[in-house]
Amino acid sequence: MSIKYDVNFINPFLYAVIHVLNTMAEVEVKPGKPYINKKRLSQGDITGLIGITGYSSGTVSLSLSEGAVLTTVNNMLMESYTELEDEIADAVGELTNMIVGQARTSLSEQGMSFDASTPSVVVGRDHKLGHVSNAPILAIPFKTDKGEDLIVEVCFTGAEEDQT
Amino acid sequence: MSIKYDVNFINPFLYAVIHVLNTMAEVEVKPGKPYINKKRLSQGDITGLIGITGYSSGTVSLSLSEGAVLTTVNNMLMESYTELEDEIADAVGELTNMIVGQARTSLSEQGMSFDASTPSVVVGRDHKLGHVSNAPILAIPFKTDKGEDLIVEVCFTGAEEDQT
Repeated sequence: MSIKYDVNFINPFLYAVIHVLNTMAEVEVKPGKPYINKKRLSQGDITGLIGITGYSSGTVSLSLSEGAVLTTVNNMLMESYTELEDEIADAVGELTNMIVGQARTSLSEQGMSFDASTPSVVVGRDHKLGHVSNAPILAIPFKTDKGEDLIVEVCFTGAEEDQT
Repeated sequence: MSIKYDVNFINPFLYAVIHVLNTMAEVEVKPGKPYINKKRLSQGDITGLIGITGYSSGTVSLSLSEGAVLTTVNNMLMESYTELEDEIADAVGELTNMIVGQARTSLSEQGMSFDASTPSVVVGRDHKLGHVSNAPILAIPFKTDKGEDLIVEVCFTGAEEDQT
């Protein structure tokens, strides 16, 4: 079992985010440069979180700013929420599920088969979320066309940074 | 695959919490009456969270009040923290890991084999954490001998409430 946070590993998550947000919510997002989150704490207004087992064990999270989540979920549910209601948490869980599901399909084609737990969702302005593992945390940031922030973080046991 | 939140399912978690807190931190906890969390949101000052796959998929969380976590982690690490430092988050992740690991061993002896992801930890006073699934959430509350609160929540796909 070896995982490298290289382009072959990053792209399945990157394309899954773009595809899921576009098809589910008609939101276009642009990826920024992936990096290793050395602080090991992600912060956001809402985070969907899924546990991973199989080829390796780990966690995948999707954190969104309040602006990003309202834009996305209002589009997705055809609502006009102005605050982080319970329905929004469920929708973020569902988006996280779909993103992880699509990434798993691509990774499985590369010989890395993962199982995924059901999602959990953390709500709370500036909550802190830590992935507890010795593995490096790969962060893939995105911006909506309104400039709102979302970020996917991946932390898999046994993963190595890409040194290239 | 069928899971019933009955005594055979609850006891592995209940004994794991008592045993792990006692051996790791010399903290004695008394269980309260398990119940179904219909609000579907747990709140606490810090929560360790693990995703589950295998026989069923789901999530297990351990939420502690600030008092409970400081008592436990200070005992465990022989420290005297007064605030929720990063080291405390790691220790809560480790405790969650051990509790889930021990419960998995007992459940596996009953023919229910689960895999567990690495833990995540949510820090933030009164953060809200939702388990996203249609399954009922089983909550098992505990109190330390100082009266501080901790709670384990389990949400497994396909689980049913015990009607007896």
